[in-house]
Amino acid sequence: MQKEIKIMYNAQGLVPAIVQDRETQQVLMMAWMNEEALRLTHETQLAHFWSRSRQTLWKKGETSGNLLKVQEIRVDCDADTLLLSVDPVGPACHTGHVSCFYRQMERSHV
Amino acid sequence: MQKEIKIMYNAQGLVPAIVQDRETQQVLMMAWMNEEALRLTHETQLAHFWSRSRQTLWKKGETSGNLLKVQEIRVDCDADTLLLSVDPVGPACHTGHVSCFYRQMERSHV
Repeated sequence: MQKEIKIMYNAQGLVPAIVQDRETQQVLMMAWMNEEALRLTHETQLAHFWSRSRQTLWKKGETSGNLLKVQEIRVDCDADTLLLSVDPVGPACHTGHVSCFYRQMERSHV
Repeated sequence: MQKEIKIMYNAQGLVPAIVQDRETQQVLMMAWMNEEALRLTHETQLAHFWSRSRQTLWKKGETSGNLLKVQEIRVDCDADTLLLSVDPVGPACHTGHVSCFYRQMERSHV
């Protein structure tokens, strides 16, 4: 039987959650969860996050329809980062891109 | 020509960097970079991070030999998260696992 995993939330009560497409393995986005968002994600199997800018719980795709169906949640060795394996209903990025990571950095940008 | 990308470091001067295996597409780890770590990563093509616990710059694999050869750095829509595509020399996790995300969460853990 697996040991309990105690998530290590930061001082703001948040933990970063990386979102990866289950099928393509593409990393789609990264967002933050509080305890409530994680609980709702588990319960509904739809990704919920905490919006730091709006200071509110946020069901991903509630407005756009681009929900993220969560198939699995993994946790890292320090239990301070989550990895969600999802089936996305549509583009994950609010810009319309499949992934938020649509820009490559050049060395000149550093 | 691509527009300048201005990385949005947090109040501590850090930005989260997700590390993904270029070949297998497995998400290996997440760590934090400051401006210096990002510059060194670009310059050496080896992943450098900022250790929040030790408050020091950290060349990944310096002790273990498990360097991460960086092939590409991507940045998300908000420019506050990085995604590194890497060829890892060995296991990325200090536990010896290929990935730090070796544990699956059950609903009972929430």
